[in-house]
Amino acid sequence: MTALPKTYRRVVLVNRPPGEPAESDFRIEEVPMPEPRHGEVLVKVAYLSLDPYQRGRMRDAASYSAPVGLGEVMTGGTVGEVVKSSNPRFAVGDVVEDRLGWQEYAIGGAASMRKVDPALAPISTANGVLGMPGMTAYFGLLDVGQPKPGETIVVSAASGAVGQVVGQIGRIMGCRVVGIAGGAKKCAFVKDELGFDACIDYKAEKDLDAALRAACPNGIDVYFDNVGGDITDAVIRNINFFARLALCGAISQYNATGPSMGPRLMGTFVGKRARAQGFIVTDFAGRYEPAMRQMGEWIRSGKLKYREDVVQGIDKAPRAFIGLLRGENFGKLLVKM
Amino acid sequence: MTALPKTYRRVVLVNRPPGEPAESDFRIEEVPMPEPRHGEVLVKVAYLSLDPYQRGRMRDAASYSAPVGLGEVMTGGTVGEVVKSSNPRFAVGDVVEDRLGWQEYAIGGAASMRKVDPALAPISTANGVLGMPGMTAYFGLLDVGQPKPGETIVVSAASGAVGQVVGQIGRIMGCRVVGIAGGAKKCAFVKDELGFDACIDYKAEKDLDAALRAACPNGIDVYFDNVGGDITDAVIRNINFFARLALCGAISQYNATGPSMGPRLMGTFVGKRARAQGFIVTDFAGRYEPAMRQMGEWIRSGKLKYREDVVQGIDKAPRAFIGLLRGENFGKLLVKM
Repeated sequence: MTALPKTYRRVVLVNRPPGEPAESDFRIEEVPMPEPRHGEVLVKVAYLSLDPYQRGRMRDAASYSAPVGLGEVMTGGTVGEVVKSSNPRFAVGDVVEDRLGWQEYAIGGAASMRKVDPALAPISTANGVLGMPGMTAYFGLLDVGQPKPGETIVVSAASGAVGQVVGQIGRIMGCRVVGIAGGAKKCAFVKDELGFDACIDYKAEKDLDAALRAACPNGIDVYFDNVGGDITDAVIRNINFFARLALCGAISQYNATGPSMGPRLMGTFVGKRARAQGFIVTDFAGRYEPAMRQMGEWIRSGKLKYREDVVQGIDKAPRAFIGLLRGENFGKLLVKM
Repeated sequence: MTALPKTYRRVVLVNRPPGEPAESDFRIEEVPMPEPRHGEVLVKVAYLSLDPYQRGRMRDAASYSAPVGLGEVMTGGTVGEVVKSSNPRFAVGDVVEDRLGWQEYAIGGAASMRKVDPALAPISTANGVLGMPGMTAYFGLLDVGQPKPGETIVVSAASGAVGQVVGQIGRIMGCRVVGIAGGAKKCAFVKDELGFDACIDYKAEKDLDAALRAACPNGIDVYFDNVGGDITDAVIRNINFFARLALCGAISQYNATGPSMGPRLMGTFVGKRARAQGFIVTDFAGRYEPAMRQMGEWIRSGKLKYREDVVQGIDKAPRAFIGLLRGENFGKLLVKM
């Protein structure tokens, strides 16, 4: 083992932007290497996961999770290697996944930390298809959306970390799957590489309602919503009787200073008997293990593919995160340390 | 039996108003008394039920039910007496309930027609607490809202046909029940007569959010929505984690020519894991019988009260219906023939 450096870099939150974040809302600082105490381990982070939910943690508002304090390390999922251990559960060399934040090294060892088997798949997938985004897709689609074979599923942010998995599971379930993504390249990837039945480029389509009607000749039974806003409005106007909306995120609203205005469409849920259900992946934590086994099988058999968008170096994290909120990433966004 | 008149009056739809209906959108016409054919009965209508859903039938739009045609009798629930019968299921003198429309006499005998036992409760209740509105409250609250003892339920249009039943069942279930109604008289009735824990007068309150916070110190777990619009927005801003919204109607939107604009609040459902579920009472038709038995027991034991707002004469139906959409009725609105 090479000697550890004396210091490492991390990204802390220094400002709470009401609207779109700027790089100046973050500070990259260099701090001394910590020493794990009893029960702790020192992790050398290999990959940091950048995800839309992290925007919510930048707000000082009541939520399902506590906000990141000013001057504190930004929250984020990580996968890395144990380089020192004072915890009998973990040995030096173990690859582990936990939410250790935007930093090159971190103290871990909490109950939430789990070992990752590098033989199963590249370890970066512990932040993606075999991690939180993958589990979000799995439980959100299957438990909340409850698709039946032959039904039509629409998923927004279709080329993103969650959306790409949602659509592929939908295909495995025997559904027609229509993605919505921004730009021809993303749409081509979703259709040609991932095997979605169709993909609508919301940036190119002038009439999203007409595009949805064309792509979904039998209407929309399940909508997996990652974006909210205009796109979701158009979907709601085209749902079937007994449609299910699995509400996973609303990235179009995350940089807004308050709720944007839109047409009131919930009244249509009555006659349609439609259901909209919000969910958080951690509510399903007790069922991750069998779900991951199933996902691993699908990956090995080639039924489940994934695309990563990897940025090099912790100092690039703030800019990459700002781009994520603009939809600039193409696939699961990761920072490689 | 007294001889039947040669003619009777009925109300037909003559115009599809885009906004608020006017009396001129309806025509009262006098037509010859029909003769029941094989399998049919002739019903002398005693009470006609006026309900918000009938506004939807005036539109020429796809819905869960077919629209009323121009020149056709307006749809509506009725209770009345069989005065001629060519159907072995029904005898002259039977009291029956069915959706026979806005008319003094009607041909009945369809599978949907059911006998009403006048010994159980006044026959007008077959259009109210022991009819469609009562079943709507029962299944909407219990099956869709799924309240647990100790939770807080909010119901809008609280003094209406459905709302008054929702709140009382909520109390029977051991919940805190908060009504929303328009005007001090309705609120006093809901609180003092029906036993709701609190009632908010939305016409008098300048800050509905603050009023909801005050009336619901533990937040809102179940919302039974009859109104949509601003009132529903305020409720959504105050829901608890895992809240359930039972979407029954959106009367505030029924006279609108298109969806009104409002704040986009569905994004908050994600972190809250909230659920909004639309429903139609007829989806529960197979379970009406035991539900009605239960409701009848509650009525006889004094746990379930009801208030009717009775208008005299079929010619008053259009004006009363317009008033219903404005919230002018006070209790279940009926037309007595």
